[in-house]
Amino acid sequence: MSTISTASLPFAKGHGTENDFIIVNDPQGELTLDADRVAALCDRRAGIGADGLLRVIRAQALVDNGEITELAEGIAGDDWFMDYRNADGSIAEMCGNGTRVFAHWVVVQGLVRFPSDASDDGEVSFTVGTRAGVKPITVHSFNSRRAEVSVEMGAPEVMGLSTANMAGQSYAGLGVDMGNPHLAATIPGLTSESLAELILEQPEFDPEFFPHGLNLEVVTPLKDGEVHMRVFERGVGETRSCGTGTVAAAVSALADAGAVTGSVKVNVPGGQVLVDVREDGSTLRGPSEIVATGLAAI
Amino acid sequence: MSTISTASLPFAKGHGTENDFIIVNDPQGELTLDADRVAALCDRRAGIGADGLLRVIRAQALVDNGEITELAEGIAGDDWFMDYRNADGSIAEMCGNGTRVFAHWVVVQGLVRFPSDASDDGEVSFTVGTRAGVKPITVHSFNSRRAEVSVEMGAPEVMGLSTANMAGQSYAGLGVDMGNPHLAATIPGLTSESLAELILEQPEFDPEFFPHGLNLEVVTPLKDGEVHMRVFERGVGETRSCGTGTVAAAVSALADAGAVTGSVKVNVPGGQVLVDVREDGSTLRGPSEIVATGLAAI
Repeated sequence: MSTISTASLPFAKGHGTENDFIIVNDPQGELTLDADRVAALCDRRAGIGADGLLRVIRAQALVDNGEITELAEGIAGDDWFMDYRNADGSIAEMCGNGTRVFAHWVVVQGLVRFPSDASDDGEVSFTVGTRAGVKPITVHSFNSRRAEVSVEMGAPEVMGLSTANMAGQSYAGLGVDMGNPHLAATIPGLTSESLAELILEQPEFDPEFFPHGLNLEVVTPLKDGEVHMRVFERGVGETRSCGTGTVAAAVSALADAGAVTGSVKVNVPGGQVLVDVREDGSTLRGPSEIVATGLAAI
Repeated sequence: MSTISTASLPFAKGHGTENDFIIVNDPQGELTLDADRVAALCDRRAGIGADGLLRVIRAQALVDNGEITELAEGIAGDDWFMDYRNADGSIAEMCGNGTRVFAHWVVVQGLVRFPSDASDDGEVSFTVGTRAGVKPITVHSFNSRRAEVSVEMGAPEVMGLSTANMAGQSYAGLGVDMGNPHLAATIPGLTSESLAELILEQPEFDPEFFPHGLNLEVVTPLKDGEVHMRVFERGVGETRSCGTGTVAAAVSALADAGAVTGSVKVNVPGGQVLVDVREDGSTLRGPSEIVATGLAAI
């Protein structure tokens, strides 16, 4: 009756601005990580609990397993690939906050050569494969618990102005395509205190402008290089942080201030990130934290 | 810059009918587990995440530390004591589902002598100290992942009939004192399907009958020895399971069927437990599951 089960899965748990992840090392793609198992691991009461799972796998192993058909441009076979799963076990293309935690973990684990890859100021840069293509990453500093990481997020595509209604309020904002659709509404005179009191719920929006729905960011005007935002994510609800949403918020706040490029500190409920918007791209810089390592019985 | 932090706390995570806990071994009471640290560990996004924390400590160590003034009747100094903390770090007296997970863990860890304590049929019985007094426990079967555990819950005290209003509906039920106050409303004709569709929100109740508030259980009538229930917990909201609430529900369903004692299978959203109501006491029997062990960086 006291049989000791030996089936166990090594894992880590970490978060980026309170978007949290289970991390699993699987360099050669040997683990069985079907949707049911991922959902069981991510279940917040019957499992460990997380917003998603990051599988650390060599890009070539995903191809060899037939899990992706070919490597996108810029991804080498021995690059680390962030195989991202949603909490329900489904596959997602990309997660900006997840990428920081992924990069932190592969550096802590010694999976990226260090310090031979490090620049003089102690930073280490490398590329990570994702289903949304190659992502250049810089780990600025790290220890086993915390890191500061930048991820290239691509060029925001400004779609023009639109309006949404939420909880009886009208929100006029800038449509921004970050690979996913955003309406980032910078509200004149909005303070962080009044932002905190707003009711965020499923918005009504223009279905011609947003045929695939939207993520709605409510943003305070740029002040001393800083904004506050809250986000209602498509299919999820309000979250503590949304990587692409912080870039859309920065683009909207810059436009509101008459600028196209610039650096903006974006405060989200889960912490603070720094968004750098350039003509040809954007960079999201922020914290990562590893809070636990262990063995899962699931 | 790549300093490796060595501060880490060994922990386990487990749940009883989806009421989940972080478990920490601290036999001699040497850990610093102040409210801030417990809250950080139980934070579902920035920490590991749980409904509460179970500290495994010798009863005498709590007295020696001055954390309790004296041992209640029936608790020996070398008994294991369940020092229960809520997710916000505050101290709670007792948690029925937590006691099952606690007992499972101390048996798996070899902290209770086994098999010398085992009866012929492979069960092991022992007592656990809690701030609500000594709790007799039987572990019926276990392995490292799952166990079936019974806990003595004391004699339910029937307070009489009362009525509450919730989401525009009136709920007439039996007031049951289990150390905490319950209104367990067995609704004639209610099916598990219609139960699932009810709106559970903060109820309005008779403040003279329930001066300290109440936990409200909505219960289907007894059928083939079984009921379904949902619970709205005082100060928390709807939960997946509530140990004392399942006993109150069994008492209410038995009364509705004209009985004072009996055994009732109680189905909660998080699983199924078996409640045995006797003249002089009650027993709650149900599952425990350990889902992970690890090291926390918090």
